[in-house]
Amino acid sequence: MKSYRKELWFEAPKRRGFFNLTPQVEQCLHESGIREGLCLVNAMHITASVFINDDESGLHADFERWLEKLAPENPHSAYDHNRTGEDNADAHLKRSIMGREVVVAVTAGKLDFGPWERIFYGEFDGRRKKSVLVKMIGE
Amino acid sequence: MKSYRKELWFEAPKRRGFFNLTPQVEQCLHESGIREGLCLVNAMHITASVFINDDESGLHADFERWLEKLAPENPHSAYDHNRTGEDNADAHLKRSIMGREVVVAVTAGKLDFGPWERIFYGEFDGRRKKSVLVKMIGE
Amino acid sequence: MKSYRKELWFEAPKRRGFFNLTPQVEQCLHESGIREGLCLVNAMHITASVFINDDESGLHADFERWLEKLAPENPHSAYDHNRTGEDNADAHLKRSIMGREVVVAVTAGKLDFGPWERIFYGEFDGRRKKSVLVKMIGE
Repeated sequence: MKSYRKELWFEAPKRRGFFNLTPQVEQCLHESGIREGLCLVNAMHITASVFINDDESGLHADFERWLEKLAPENPHSAYDHNRTGEDNADAHLKRSIMGREVVVAVTAGKLDFGPWERIFYGEFDGRRKKSVLVKMIGE
Repeated sequence: MKSYRKELWFEAPKRRGFFNLTPQVEQCLHESGIREGLCLVNAMHITASVFINDDESGLHADFERWLEKLAPENPHSAYDHNRTGEDNADAHLKRSIMGREVVVAVTAGKLDFGPWERIFYGEFDGRRKKSVLVKMIGE
Repeated sequence: MKSYRKELWFEAPKRRGFFNLTPQVEQCLHESGIREGLCLVNAMHITASVFINDDESGLHADFERWLEKLAPENPHSAYDHNRTGEDNADAHLKRSIMGREVVVAVTAGKLDFGPWERIFYGEFDGRRKKSVLVKMIGE
């Protein structure tokens, strides 16, 4: 069995944003030499998500509006968590909807994707450095 | 290490619906010969989900109503994504709540389930052929 | 390839609550002897979640309020599932938001976590014994 590990680092310029990680994860897979196995990609921070969806900017705007409706940032005082000195309670909730991680099949040395699947990093509390973990096992 | 891969294909007759995949995934496990390992089951399309819950029609009706409340289909014009010519932005959101994938333990040649766990395909933009990927690794 | 399996059992005193599983999963990893691999932790019951977030009681109070807003317990009669004699339809919905499972990388014999990642069991229909499955593969 082979295993592979890499951290990818990001600094989102705004509080929230979506970033296509697919090319970086494909590069990891190439480095790993794994042909058959499983690839885990997870946010290492608990105010961010890794998810699979469409690379379409209109949809990303819809996600932003929708998440803000389901788990509004403001008022910060609406959240007990923000009494600890934080202002990011909403980011913990948004990340819960979008998910922490994806597991992707690796087949014949490639990410085994459907036609429109792309891996995204969803940042909900940016403007600081944060990381994503890529871990693969297989052979 | 053994690995196994199969695509399952569906054509949902309506826009939305839930389908119990468990027998097909059990058949895949039987074909794989894997006794100990992990089984990934994921939607290959980004307007559908794979999730684990109860095989109870009342609950499925509750899911349908609840998802339509959290991410309504109409009006189509409420979503930027639908300006691209699509009408399925709500399906991308519904799938985000229900999830893309499940990972199930394989123990002693069986899906290692709790008493009521069943694997479902959740279609949110049907009336066309769509696929689910089953990938297993183990030995 | 090594594999490891253990059931963890809980009896939540109230209908809902969050419990930090991290020490128990770390103990499982120690028992497994696995140094590199993947660790699956999943609820075996379909009215509970396993998720990764912050060990902060204010945030947990926010989660409780937020989930109750998105998928209210009452009135029980609002849900078709509750016509079967159950009263826990809301628990199935809450669990869908928070997720069934997490997959965690194992690196150098440790759970490969970011700085604040902790594994939680989220109970949404407690006051009875329920179980979580830990399954690891690797070497």
